[in-house]
Amino acid sequence: MESFSLHPRLASDCHLIGELGLCRVLLLDDARYPWVILVPRRAGIREIFELNAADRDALLRESCLTGEFMMQAFAGDKLNIGALGNLVPQLHLHHIVRHAADPAWPGPVWGHSAAEPYPHDLLAERVACLREGLALV
Amino acid sequence: MESFSLHPRLASDCHLIGELGLCRVLLLDDARYPWVILVPRRAGIREIFELNAADRDALLRESCLTGEFMMQAFAGDKLNIGALGNLVPQLHLHHIVRHAADPAWPGPVWGHSAAEPYPHDLLAERVACLREGLALV
Repeated sequence: MESFSLHPRLASDCHLIGELGLCRVLLLDDARYPWVILVPRRAGIREIFELNAADRDALLRESCLTGEFMMQAFAGDKLNIGALGNLVPQLHLHHIVRHAADPAWPGPVWGHSAAEPYPHDLLAERVACLREGLALV
Repeated sequence: MESFSLHPRLASDCHLIGELGLCRVLLLDDARYPWVILVPRRAGIREIFELNAADRDALLRESCLTGEFMMQAFAGDKLNIGALGNLVPQLHLHHIVRHAADPAWPGPVWGHSAAEPYPHDLLAERVACLREGLALV
């Protein structure tokens, strides 16, 4: 059986922050938005409906945990969740905390403008917050 | 208890095609993309994590049913799923079948360009296909 390995584009665009029961948890390197990506550790899966029933349930549970924590921790106005994958076919689920004052509001963040990498201190703070809040291993 | 009513923006942008156990099923009036929107018939809900456990499960099940059928019926290259709601806060889940030749590919469809309303015959055909394939009532 093919084993899971993270798509190189996700590896290069994101910081690894830990693991949940099903998903690898990544922080997109764009300081303008709290933006977490969940990647089920399953090989060859492109769509949510391709997961088996137990994995679908786990993804939903981990997505709700992630989204609810992020909205509280970052005082969001709205959560945006998306599974697109037109460029990176490996199944991955975006969770972006949106604020009415953010650069792309009220439009979507995807395709809006180039990412602005995290400064070192803010990155460390945000990773610590997420690792603790989501109880990541 | 507040009762569910469809947000007027969704009502004006979409055609009603039927009901699933939890969700109202809408077809966005843009002939360029097979684009179905599921709206849980629950009042006052903005985020997936605000649904109770049974409704979360039903939304996932109905989303997978919808997405898998659409990908097969419309021979998609990739399914895009999204819960944004920056403009329309009522929880609604987009399902868009993407093709490598579609106008927005590989970018997101949201915010790309103005919708192109369905011609009458194509609308009737697509609604009939979805009503039958999803066993809508």
